[in-house]
Amino acid sequence: MRSWIEGANAPECDFPLENLPYGAFRRRGERLRCGVAIGDHVLDLAVLEESGLIHAGGRTAVFAAPHINAFMALGPAAWRRVRARLTDLLAEGGDPSLRGERGMLARALVPLKEVELGLPIKVAGYTDFYASRQHAFNVGTMFRGAGNALPPNWLHIPIGYNGRASTVVVSGTDIRRPLGQRKPPEAAGPVFGPSTRLDFELEMGAVVGVPSRMGEPITVAEADAMIFGYVLLNDWSARDIQAWEYQPLGPFQAKAFATTISPWVVTKAALEPFRVSTPPREKPLLPYLCEPGPLLHDIHLEVALRPAGAERATTIARTNSRHLYYSAAQQLAHHAVGGCRMECGDLLGSGTISGPEKGSFGSLLELAWDGREPVRLATGETRSFLEDGDEVTLRGWAEGEGYRIGFGECTGRVLPAPAERDW
Amino acid sequence: MRSWIEGANAPECDFPLENLPYGAFRRRGERLRCGVAIGDHVLDLAVLEESGLIHAGGRTAVFAAPHINAFMALGPAAWRRVRARLTDLLAEGGDPSLRGERGMLARALVPLKEVELGLPIKVAGYTDFYASRQHAFNVGTMFRGAGNALPPNWLHIPIGYNGRASTVVVSGTDIRRPLGQRKPPEAAGPVFGPSTRLDFELEMGAVVGVPSRMGEPITVAEADAMIFGYVLLNDWSARDIQAWEYQPLGPFQAKAFATTISPWVVTKAALEPFRVSTPPREKPLLPYLCEPGPLLHDIHLEVALRPAGAERATTIARTNSRHLYYSAAQQLAHHAVGGCRMECGDLLGSGTISGPEKGSFGSLLELAWDGREPVRLATGETRSFLEDGDEVTLRGWAEGEGYRIGFGECTGRVLPAPAERDW
Repeated sequence: MRSWIEGANAPECDFPLENLPYGAFRRRGERLRCGVAIGDHVLDLAVLEESGLIHAGGRTAVFAAPHINAFMALGPAAWRRVRARLTDLLAEGGDPSLRGERGMLARALVPLKEVELGLPIKVAGYTDFYASRQHAFNVGTMFRGAGNALPPNWLHIPIGYNGRASTVVVSGTDIRRPLGQRKPPEAAGPVFGPSTRLDFELEMGAVVGVPSRMGEPITVAEADAMIFGYVLLNDWSARDIQAWEYQPLGPFQAKAFATTISPWVVTKAALEPFRVSTPPREKPLLPYLCEPGPLLHDIHLEVALRPAGAERATTIARTNSRHLYYSAAQQLAHHAVGGCRMECGDLLGSGTISGPEKGSFGSLLELAWDGREPVRLATGETRSFLEDGDEVTLRGWAEGEGYRIGFGECTGRVLPAPAERDW
Repeated sequence: MRSWIEGANAPECDFPLENLPYGAFRRRGERLRCGVAIGDHVLDLAVLEESGLIHAGGRTAVFAAPHINAFMALGPAAWRRVRARLTDLLAEGGDPSLRGERGMLARALVPLKEVELGLPIKVAGYTDFYASRQHAFNVGTMFRGAGNALPPNWLHIPIGYNGRASTVVVSGTDIRRPLGQRKPPEAAGPVFGPSTRLDFELEMGAVVGVPSRMGEPITVAEADAMIFGYVLLNDWSARDIQAWEYQPLGPFQAKAFATTISPWVVTKAALEPFRVSTPPREKPLLPYLCEPGPLLHDIHLEVALRPAGAERATTIARTNSRHLYYSAAQQLAHHAVGGCRMECGDLLGSGTISGPEKGSFGSLLELAWDGREPVRLATGETRSFLEDGDEVTLRGWAEGEGYRIGFGECTGRVLPAPAERDW
């Protein structure tokens, strides 16, 4: 498919006509509103909706809102209708209503470099899972020893925990190094202060569009149908705080200070051609978790790190979301099956995605193996954990024939901890 | 203090003039709005606000909303102003504007038995702590053995985890027995189906009224000032699901199916005369957790259980919130100190409150000691865990001289799990 929008047909463009990811943006002085990325531009859906060029199907307007939740809440039929309509408006040879109207075009099509991007969704709840077998094994080995690395439940349950929705932020937001309690190995008791083992975690995030009802179980197929799309997700982690706090009730303040997501929600529809099956089961799953078909996606993922003042970033990890042992649909089915009501806007982190080789691990903890094998950067520096000023950027894309479905960037820079006089 | 409202001056009334707890209610056919409980009545704050009898101080009306969040968001000065005004309007010898106006009185004062009560707050985030030393010791002994009962961090950190906000429901809501994975001790692998070890947990819930900023630490004194009030909280728990899932990331589906809170938020102001200190520290706390004064409250707590069809409930536990080792202010300070943004409407569960003796334990797991010493009910039946049809009711009050600050009831009835054809 070709678009008449300049730049959308380049083979390395993240946002071709096949993608059409949703986000929130504003021009200077404007309020946030919903848009779709196409080429180097964002299409202002509020303008299109107001002018009658698109109609999502609800009783009221949905795209003038600062998040895409109201649109998601209209459900899969509306998602399909708007995607088909946008494709028609943006395709070469399609409906000329938009490209034929110079005035409309100037109002509706805005260069990406002229806008500020907001959080695409209002996050209802944030849940983080633990679905990469290699990551679970790596971290388990470091925290509990190789003999107890993989917990006995891991091959049976998509293990997860509730995260903190209030600190999910959009790509580009600076991240302050957290304060917290940690217990240095040699110390008799804990100390309080800035984390000294700050890390990133490379994850995918699934966005729930269709809610479930309290007390009513759902199937994996129903869960898949409830998912609106996916984002890149960096689950920033303070490893020293985590090690000291996580028993017996799980990670808490080690993960609560920030979670960054990419500004564009890539729809499930756009990723449909890239479906792949989960890896072979090592133990049979209980029937409620069995997959009706391929539920993962073949998405290339990369992590780049740029120290303060450095001109170029170093790519320190390359992996793929197909390494996950559980799909988002399986995680969501497990989440809801006991009666937990899922909401439009819920965000489900996949868990850190680590492939089988060292260069494919999704956290510094693993890449530098607990500080024992520091990662070398192009600047000549090394890293065991993140330093103040470091900028971490996640990228991801599914590779089609002559096009890619890209996620854009998920980036954040580490700020120093609050000054000691403030605590 | 005496009120001219009938019933508010009875010594065993939960809602005297000294209390004035906030909630949400509706008459038949109406929308939910905010109210205050007084005697056997609820005072319609939306009517008072509309007629100009009270003014919370914001630019727009706050009491016609279905939750008290907008009022809480106005902050402590507004809380004090409205409390003082309501006291004046309701006290014998106070401002006659309300009691002198027959028509107004009929519209604004509604018998409690004629209204339906809603969830008082829109829950932004729900966090559950683990602050009773006896409970942590009891459960730790059962899950990990007496030698590892109290985790090494417990005396240093107010341990907590993020819960699920979407399933916090108001007292009176039926609770469906959850489905989930559990591993019977004798089985080789896990099975899926209804929980067979369903339990309650007696807790207090603190309601955050004033938000904090992302990346900025707060002190314990600031945390105390951020709290609007308190509710009773039943953190329903599926012990079999919990035992199998909770390693290594904490409780998840075992707690996600339901959490019940009482319909009235008792303000911090009403509880001020009942301040008590936390118990002596067994190990010194890090400075960021040290208390500037007495931060707990002396609140009597009871749990009653009524089997299906029984006329009377049996009180199976009596305890007091003064047994908590950490206060809500300490928990909130710990929660926010690493940079986690706290929101207006956040709900913080204290953790199960167990006193030193067996009759003061706050869960069936502890009262029946892991099923080994079943609890005897007045009906002659016994309970190790909850059965379908059981109704659990929490009650709580602070005992003043000639009056009590009551919380009303926090009650819920167990419904059978979904039928097997539905899963």
